[in-house]
Amino acid sequence: MQTRIIPPADNAHPCPLLIKRLLLSGSRYERTREIVYRDQVRYSYATFNERVARLANVLTTAGVRPGDTVAVMDWDSHRYLECMFAVPMIGAVLHTINVRLSPEQILYTMNHAEDRLVLVNAEFLPLYQAIAPHLTTVEKTLLLSDHPEASAELPGLVGEYESLMAEAGTRYDFPDFDENSVATTFYTTGTTGNPKGVYFTHRQLVLHTLAMASTLGSMDSVRLMGSDDVYMPITPMFHVHAWGVPYVATMLGVKQVYPGRYDPEFLVELWRREKVSFSHCVPTILQMLLGAKAAQGVDFGGWKLIIGGSALNRGLYDAAKACGIQLTAAYGMSETCPLISGAYLNEELRAGSEDERSRYRIKAGVPVPLVEAAIMNEDGTFAPADGETQGELVLRAPWLTQGYFREPEKSEALWAGGWMHTGDVATLDDMGFIDIRDRLKDVIKTGGEWISSLDLEDLISRHPAVREVAVVGVPDPQWGERPFALLVLRPDAALDARALKDHLKPFVEQGHINKWAIPSQIATVTEIPKTSVGKLDKKRIRQDVATWQAAGSTFLSTL
Amino acid sequence: MQTRIIPPADNAHPCPLLIKRLLLSGSRYERTREIVYRDQVRYSYATFNERVARLANVLTTAGVRPGDTVAVMDWDSHRYLECMFAVPMIGAVLHTINVRLSPEQILYTMNHAEDRLVLVNAEFLPLYQAIAPHLTTVEKTLLLSDHPEASAELPGLVGEYESLMAEAGTRYDFPDFDENSVATTFYTTGTTGNPKGVYFTHRQLVLHTLAMASTLGSMDSVRLMGSDDVYMPITPMFHVHAWGVPYVATMLGVKQVYPGRYDPEFLVELWRREKVSFSHCVPTILQMLLGAKAAQGVDFGGWKLIIGGSALNRGLYDAAKACGIQLTAAYGMSETCPLISGAYLNEELRAGSEDERSRYRIKAGVPVPLVEAAIMNEDGTFAPADGETQGELVLRAPWLTQGYFREPEKSEALWAGGWMHTGDVATLDDMGFIDIRDRLKDVIKTGGEWISSLDLEDLISRHPAVREVAVVGVPDPQWGERPFALLVLRPDAALDARALKDHLKPFVEQGHINKWAIPSQIATVTEIPKTSVGKLDKKRIRQDVATWQAAGSTFLSTL
Repeated sequence: MQTRIIPPADNAHPCPLLIKRLLLSGSRYERTREIVYRDQVRYSYATFNERVARLANVLTTAGVRPGDTVAVMDWDSHRYLECMFAVPMIGAVLHTINVRLSPEQILYTMNHAEDRLVLVNAEFLPLYQAIAPHLTTVEKTLLLSDHPEASAELPGLVGEYESLMAEAGTRYDFPDFDENSVATTFYTTGTTGNPKGVYFTHRQLVLHTLAMASTLGSMDSVRLMGSDDVYMPITPMFHVHAWGVPYVATMLGVKQVYPGRYDPEFLVELWRREKVSFSHCVPTILQMLLGAKAAQGVDFGGWKLIIGGSALNRGLYDAAKACGIQLTAAYGMSETCPLISGAYLNEELRAGSEDERSRYRIKAGVPVPLVEAAIMNEDGTFAPADGETQGELVLRAPWLTQGYFREPEKSEALWAGGWMHTGDVATLDDMGFIDIRDRLKDVIKTGGEWISSLDLEDLISRHPAVREVAVVGVPDPQWGERPFALLVLRPDAALDARALKDHLKPFVEQGHINKWAIPSQIATVTEIPKTSVGKLDKKRIRQDVATWQAAGSTFLSTL
Repeated sequence: MQTRIIPPADNAHPCPLLIKRLLLSGSRYERTREIVYRDQVRYSYATFNERVARLANVLTTAGVRPGDTVAVMDWDSHRYLECMFAVPMIGAVLHTINVRLSPEQILYTMNHAEDRLVLVNAEFLPLYQAIAPHLTTVEKTLLLSDHPEASAELPGLVGEYESLMAEAGTRYDFPDFDENSVATTFYTTGTTGNPKGVYFTHRQLVLHTLAMASTLGSMDSVRLMGSDDVYMPITPMFHVHAWGVPYVATMLGVKQVYPGRYDPEFLVELWRREKVSFSHCVPTILQMLLGAKAAQGVDFGGWKLIIGGSALNRGLYDAAKACGIQLTAAYGMSETCPLISGAYLNEELRAGSEDERSRYRIKAGVPVPLVEAAIMNEDGTFAPADGETQGELVLRAPWLTQGYFREPEKSEALWAGGWMHTGDVATLDDMGFIDIRDRLKDVIKTGGEWISSLDLEDLISRHPAVREVAVVGVPDPQWGERPFALLVLRPDAALDARALKDHLKPFVEQGHINKWAIPSQIATVTEIPKTSVGKLDKKRIRQDVATWQAAGSTFLSTL
């Protein structure tokens, strides 16, 4: 297509989209604003700007070159924030290590990412020392500690972070380079095989930051984060750069508070002391916070929270609201940098009832600027945006990972048909609202219909005998798949397939679910298998069910 | 420099930064929000979205191809907004004709820009018909009118806009293409020679929109424009796309009100009726508005106004504030898309006195995210950011024009040394605040010092005898230049060079100006030469003074 492209004047500056420009903006605008780490460190943006230059000097002196990968194992800290700027700004790649993976997986990711230098918090030394002999590319290490006098036996140790920083120069002439240079990488755990490396370029992170700032500041009736807010993340910084918000906060010169480890009592204390007004977390953390001793009877009025990571349920939403917290759900994943959508209410919804507003506030929300979302059928065609037709949520946006590092086949699958496949089953309505219904691998495909295992779990959990429930699809020669319910019952309660059917029948009659959704087989167990992060382990459950069915186990209850 | 660049998966979507993505965002999020034109047209974003597709079909059917230039001559209207999207979205270039130029200049710009199709408002027909015979590239015309039954004798007339729109299809599959394709162009009038064409690409406009949205929404203690504001521009849409704000408003789904011609009485009426809460204009328009009959005694509380285009003086700021208007100065120019900086107050300034806050609100302000500003000395070195050292303001940002269209020499001069030269003399302070002191060509260079002609005019105007004053530099063999003051005195008043020196002496003693700033020669006239837009015509004044000095005119008063 022959559009008009005019070459720039020979001497015009190309101005690539580089992370250094985000730092420049905030540290220039708000030189006195603070960055706080627990009750240990407190300094101004002017100092932060200087410290990023110091760290760049430390890393360069330690031999880090453009294109090298620098890994970090730390809790949420000012040091992490410094790395989020200094490492990419010298042209290197920041690998944020997921410290919640198993030692074997951490080792795998570090070798796979080709880490050259590692910054290790002293608290992770036992773990790190155990895997160090098996690292194939690491040459140097830096010790992170809240105690500058700390020392450790570490292979290739350059020194302790704070001591090195103190000696380093406060100026660094950060170079310009190609905006498509990789800035960050980290690993996401799939249900099968090794963790996969997603990666984001300077261009992508700058665009993500601008779009997120536009969204947080301008969409909806309330400004979620603006210049005079106080920001504290409660999602780990290794996970998609704490959802990308530290870059936004720095660009805007917002006060930032980093809490280290997530101790709920301390988080509440920090929230109070630093007057935190904006945070983001997963539902589990919010639940934990609201249950903390220090939180009892506290009026959290003015605290704006974005909830993502998993579905926000109405009970938690209402409980948080009762404490004065203003919740907005958002949606994204490791592959998406992560921001895709937020549960912003448009003019129509704002005029609705409080109940309706609450129902929309807990959905995945509307795509933010520059994001395109669609629902794809199994045959690659698109489903209508009618709020009912389910299919896989697929995406386009300028900040999606362009593949998995050194995984050509998985990269092709991720981008099948030129859209990024989320693996989530969703509906899209005529207001652009995305509603996530299930993981694609967990949805039950029966008789040509898709049944959300989450929906079914919700309905079954309302039976008084049920303490916990997991629903999976199991192969069926006639129907393709049939739902199977695995239950933990309350003490002294009983439930068989017939009784469950009776419980679900009214929902069929009310049109909530169709009749194929009624499980024809259930099993009662004492514990439901979970993953390391506490999610239902549906892969394991499906395996178990297959074994029981093959063995004709007598504790299966069949219609 | 060897950073790490990973090629995307073969099937990954590149997601170029295209204007169509801004439209998608707003029209999806706020389908019921309104776009209003005077008291004539009112429709929803959903309809707007459809109309952009209709217009794309009209243009394509009329033979417009990617790379073609489509020109518009209209007042501020919903039609203009439709062109701002549809024309670039089909890969063509939108030329927004400056209808305030002389017919000769308009003709020059249309031939220079190689316009292929022109949309002409019926009100401009006499002008257009006069120049039409001399147009070298225009093939087709479309008639714009508030009256669909309008017709006209126009060469190459395709038809009347609204009738063609009614017949056109409501779907258009807008293609993806290179984000570096030119989207818009328009001409800026220099003081010498022909108007020069600046141009902006899709990438530049998308980045400008995101950065502006971040700024308007998130910086400062007040949200200047967010989703629930009502926006009405009062700077013409031909001028740097109404400063780029319509793109921001559309991306966010903000209600937009387009006023057509600027009749102050009608503007006030429209402001009241549509509940306008955010606008932008030049100081002259604000002055005109406040003086309108309809504005007398009105409480404008809640109206947020950005003032740019020329310096905002304290008197006007205070007058507007007294009416409830919240003013923020901003800085930019045709070459800069235009947003460069806004007078946002940081933490330190917000804590200051009301007088100090007001003093900063009228400055050019701090650069917005991604903008780099510096003060350059005449020798190409940089001046310190001390708030005192004057020099030329030079810029880098991802949205500056990369040259002047088909003007290689002027393009090189614009970008001398890899920075865009604004032609403005400014200071930069340690909070990042830009303060514009003068135009570079108007500053007086005397004895190695730079004297701001604006500062000097301000001080001289405080003498009770002075009604109007213009200060220019005139060549001087010993000093390089010396200030010369041209005065219009109040009736029956008198002032000679000696008396003026006495008036200025205290300012020298107080350190406001140095002693070289005292003019050694003045002249009193009945009228000061002005440009067509009412600015002091300093080029003409310098010529006049040279003539008088050569002729030894007796009315010159010399120290």
